[in-house]
Amino acid sequence: MCQLLGMNCNTPTDVRFSFSGFAQRAGNTGDHTDGWGIAFFEEKGLRLFVDHQRAVTSPVAQLIREYPIKSCNVIAHIRKATQGVTSLQNCHPFVRELWGRNWVFAHNGDLKQFAPKLHAHFQPVGDTDSERAFCWIMQELSKSHAGLPSIQELTHTLRELAARIAPHGTFNFLLSNGEALWAHATTALCYTERRYPFTQAHLADEDLSVDFASETTPNDKVAIIVTAPLTKNEEWTHFRSGELKVFVDGVCLSPPSPVQS
Amino acid sequence: MCQLLGMNCNTPTDVRFSFSGFAQRAGNTGDHTDGWGIAFFEEKGLRLFVDHQRAVTSPVAQLIREYPIKSCNVIAHIRKATQGVTSLQNCHPFVRELWGRNWVFAHNGDLKQFAPKLHAHFQPVGDTDSERAFCWIMQELSKSHAGLPSIQELTHTLRELAARIAPHGTFNFLLSNGEALWAHATTALCYTERRYPFTQAHLADEDLSVDFASETTPNDKVAIIVTAPLTKNEEWTHFRSGELKVFVDGVCLSPPSPVQS
Repeated sequence: MCQLLGMNCNTPTDVRFSFSGFAQRAGNTGDHTDGWGIAFFEEKGLRLFVDHQRAVTSPVAQLIREYPIKSCNVIAHIRKATQGVTSLQNCHPFVRELWGRNWVFAHNGDLKQFAPKLHAHFQPVGDTDSERAFCWIMQELSKSHAGLPSIQELTHTLRELAARIAPHGTFNFLLSNGEALWAHATTALCYTERRYPFTQAHLADEDLSVDFASETTPNDKVAIIVTAPLTKNEEWTHFRSGELKVFVDGVCLSPPSPVQS
Repeated sequence: MCQLLGMNCNTPTDVRFSFSGFAQRAGNTGDHTDGWGIAFFEEKGLRLFVDHQRAVTSPVAQLIREYPIKSCNVIAHIRKATQGVTSLQNCHPFVRELWGRNWVFAHNGDLKQFAPKLHAHFQPVGDTDSERAFCWIMQELSKSHAGLPSIQELTHTLRELAARIAPHGTFNFLLSNGEALWAHATTALCYTERRYPFTQAHLADEDLSVDFASETTPNDKVAIIVTAPLTKNEEWTHFRSGELKVFVDGVCLSPPSPVQS
């Protein structure tokens, strides 16, 4: 299985503290060593870093830990291969363009017998169940809406699409188009919202603390979504199975949704 | 204007020597300081690095110069903005997926009054003439062929498409799908083929030499395509205006084509 990390904020924020703890799970505190990737939105632009080396030793991950890339929407993934060989084209996150926006997707789980009909557009490059599911979601989104819909409409459509894929297995995913970040869980996903008054946080996976109060303004809002809690002293809310939540400007907008599986 | 660098090889090759000289043009020996980018194919997978800082000082470019990423198809671009603001979404190379392959495109030049009709798929994310031209090429390729055609067929279609865009201005571009690299010139592009017996090369833009003989095998073939010659002591062949050439396994397959403009 894999692990996911997402960040959604109202002001461009440095993800290095959270990524540092998360990357420990790729070899030190976890065995997610079959590649990794991270995508940072900067307005509509995107930086995507993928590597088939483990995140804990990869030179590219080292760059991420040292170079403060500030972003309002980040999706990261460390991989423990279950389907597909360890190669660059199988590293999450995956990216496609739709309606003139970049869409980024990362998945934790395993989908059995999910072989939807994919038309000419949105074909997988690699051979994972995850990229196939992403291509199908993009295809169905493009069929459902003529142009970029509102976040509310997208959330509605994505909730329907996720419910159609979820019965095929474990379908924890993060998706963002740079405006919002959607998160769906069947087994393992939790989130925390960091806002004023900021406090000190201590990583669960390595001996590192940060005092957010000294690095933020009172208006900053940051939501972190992750497979398992990253810190010891923050409040983490666990997703219920079947829940899809949307995060905008560092806030979880979704009321608890009916459990669907 | 911008500058382009492409590499096409028969065995995964380290582009650091050529990129090092090329990056000097982003601030030291040239004024191409409005962002840069580089894409490396690894089989069907892709690493894309873009940055709106100048390549000569960017931490990401520093990583590229230090981390030996070996690839058979590389496209790099340093930007001097003529259309579109300096932002990440306007940094070349651009990427789209078609027929389950990544396609990478970078452009040097300026297209006037090129506003083709773009259908739902392949919409630009940024606001450059270059990405618009790329989206149109992808759209027309997907209309011309039901699935991935042979390199020969692609070359034929691309030659027609390039000839339709070129009258709008300056249209030097590099395009690759990881199998082949296509290069089209209207004003400035040249190439060299490195093969056995390898010799020493000396960069034109900085005081750096490399002895390729010590880093290669007799079977290696490497083609370098660039806006202006990178080295002082290699033979560079200049494209004629209107020429589209295709490079496969480190060899230029194209006979000189008729001059079209």
